[in-house]
Amino acid sequence: MNNFELYNPTKLVFGKGTVGRLGELVKPFGTRVLLVYGGGSIKRTGLYDQVLSQLSGIGVTVRELSGIEPNPRLSSVHKGVEICRKENIDFILPVGGGSVIDAAKAIAAGAKYDGDAWDFCTGKAQIEDALPLGTVLTLAATGSEMNGNAVISNWEEKLKRGLGSKLVYPKFSILDPELTFTVPRDQTVNGIVDIMSHVFEQYFSRTTDIPLQERFAESVLQTVIENGEKAIENGSDYEARANLLLSGTYALNGTLPNGVVTDWATHGIEHEVSAIYDIPHGAGLAIIFPNWMKYVYQERVERFVQYAVRVWNVDPAGKSDDEIALAGIQATRDYFTRIGAPATLGELNIGGDQLDRMAEEAVRYGAIGSFKKLEKADVKRILELSL
Amino acid sequence: MNNFELYNPTKLVFGKGTVGRLGELVKPFGTRVLLVYGGGSIKRTGLYDQVLSQLSGIGVTVRELSGIEPNPRLSSVHKGVEICRKENIDFILPVGGGSVIDAAKAIAAGAKYDGDAWDFCTGKAQIEDALPLGTVLTLAATGSEMNGNAVISNWEEKLKRGLGSKLVYPKFSILDPELTFTVPRDQTVNGIVDIMSHVFEQYFSRTTDIPLQERFAESVLQTVIENGEKAIENGSDYEARANLLLSGTYALNGTLPNGVVTDWATHGIEHEVSAIYDIPHGAGLAIIFPNWMKYVYQERVERFVQYAVRVWNVDPAGKSDDEIALAGIQATRDYFTRIGAPATLGELNIGGDQLDRMAEEAVRYGAIGSFKKLEKADVKRILELSL
Repeated sequence: MNNFELYNPTKLVFGKGTVGRLGELVKPFGTRVLLVYGGGSIKRTGLYDQVLSQLSGIGVTVRELSGIEPNPRLSSVHKGVEICRKENIDFILPVGGGSVIDAAKAIAAGAKYDGDAWDFCTGKAQIEDALPLGTVLTLAATGSEMNGNAVISNWEEKLKRGLGSKLVYPKFSILDPELTFTVPRDQTVNGIVDIMSHVFEQYFSRTTDIPLQERFAESVLQTVIENGEKAIENGSDYEARANLLLSGTYALNGTLPNGVVTDWATHGIEHEVSAIYDIPHGAGLAIIFPNWMKYVYQERVERFVQYAVRVWNVDPAGKSDDEIALAGIQATRDYFTRIGAPATLGELNIGGDQLDRMAEEAVRYGAIGSFKKLEKADVKRILELSL
Repeated sequence: MNNFELYNPTKLVFGKGTVGRLGELVKPFGTRVLLVYGGGSIKRTGLYDQVLSQLSGIGVTVRELSGIEPNPRLSSVHKGVEICRKENIDFILPVGGGSVIDAAKAIAAGAKYDGDAWDFCTGKAQIEDALPLGTVLTLAATGSEMNGNAVISNWEEKLKRGLGSKLVYPKFSILDPELTFTVPRDQTVNGIVDIMSHVFEQYFSRTTDIPLQERFAESVLQTVIENGEKAIENGSDYEARANLLLSGTYALNGTLPNGVVTDWATHGIEHEVSAIYDIPHGAGLAIIFPNWMKYVYQERVERFVQYAVRVWNVDPAGKSDDEIALAGIQATRDYFTRIGAPATLGELNIGGDQLDRMAEEAVRYGAIGSFKKLEKADVKRILELSL
């Protein structure tokens, strides 16, 4: 186990009816609130009205930024920063999924920075101050509700990059499983893949002697696998939705990577695909991850053997390590297919003409990943396997 | 799954050599520090000198309170409160195991309260303010390094009671596995039992549909079982000590009880035993817990079946549920015996003459536990089984 720091001050408020506590939770942070949301589904479900009623109950002034994209764009961040400055915003309240929360984090930091928030994504600047934010989550997926990270798409430059700071941890996050009942099937599927992928990035590691972290990761995977299928079958299954929601948070709230060298190459590759084609992040991950696994598993076959046996109950009797590992990888692909996730870029009408550019961009700051360091040629090969 | 709140702002600084960061971590909190420790083992190991050197490096004034008892006493808390007031202490730094940290929490709250800190343990007063504290942990056991709870013994009244508040979460906790290399065998054993018992109290629940929380609990148990024996065999096994240390923290940092109705009856019973006989908490738990299990398992046999199969790899083939459950309970007792923990109160020279009083005290505020509600007669029966 390597040395590490663990710090996560987000207060999670989890369960049925917890939106009813929004007013009380926002109140300590000021009187001028920027409400951030996406395409308007929160108006159809009635959540928008609930939120406004909570905010009006504490007498705060509300400004709105709507239309945040599924891959949140820098242009939306710019709009939010402008509102914050013009309207003297005290507190940012994203209501939605990870993209809305990610945009809110970039806005929170951008509002306190005398420059372009994109600088935080390129490393040109570090976040030194930020407006406080709190979230109402409507989708089990990104884990952004309980961490200090965000991913932003710069559509003009066709780049998708992350930012991170302890200053943009949400002060609170409200997680009501009932708010996820209306999530459409395809978004539920993408969320499941997203959560599992977050775990993969931290679980397939070369770090040894991390038995607790490995078991925690396997716990999240098994819980998502079981409850994902239930939530797809019946979107109003409270317990399935609750278990998915909690798993999504734990997949990326700092519990799994303690003392572990994590990978994140597949996320890097997927970001290049969705930066150009604007496909859902989860769909891209479903396509690429099993191919990454096949490409790298021999670097440390025992980790993939453990994955196959513990997570997928592959019977090791009479099989070689390679066979066991490959059976686990195939089980992953089969599960993604069973829940309705795509298996090839072709299914999303993406051809091979941009592979070079994507591979080039993926390694623009150097080789990616740690389980196996991937150079441009490796990335291109994984993308070819994904066509 | 029930509704819940999760909030844990303690910063964990984990790994080799992390005491070297103590100065930097203490500095933001003021200039007058109360160093709290136990019987002087930190002087023998050189940790005391390291700590003082870190504190002198940041130029703070240090006052000391030593001699904190293994079951920390109210009289020590009173001494600490007095020093804090007289010396205008800004920050409390417990260096030691859970008892030292628990005492520091009570002192931190007592120093800001115009009355007796014992009032927090009886419910006469709530903690409304507290001095900040940060810890250097030297023992894998209580989890007190990353939560807001403490247990204090009132030796005059022969009572052992808890206090809890979000205001006494440590600001930081330094966990260096090497600091636990010198922990004697018996204390290592007690720590292992303590950690496992914390998990038991949260795992043996009547709450359903908590698959992630159950798996997390099983993860901690399996990790402790494996690494406990290694640490006992070779006290300087870094990885074993690190895995125990991290498991101890996760057993009681709020990860396991999310949305779960927990039990804590066995801790209640043990507190009555150690309030009278001043035995190590872990020894008391090792004696009582398997007897509690046998007494209650039929209330929800499936939870004990799952425990036996998943944690102890009991082969369920051809066995009844009762047989599987009892095999898991026996495996628990066998493990405790194998690592050298006591199995009966008789081994600690405790007879049956105070059973009535202990049972009476255990239920003084009403029946205890939730897996099975225990009245006085139940507690007495469990204690009789433990003689």
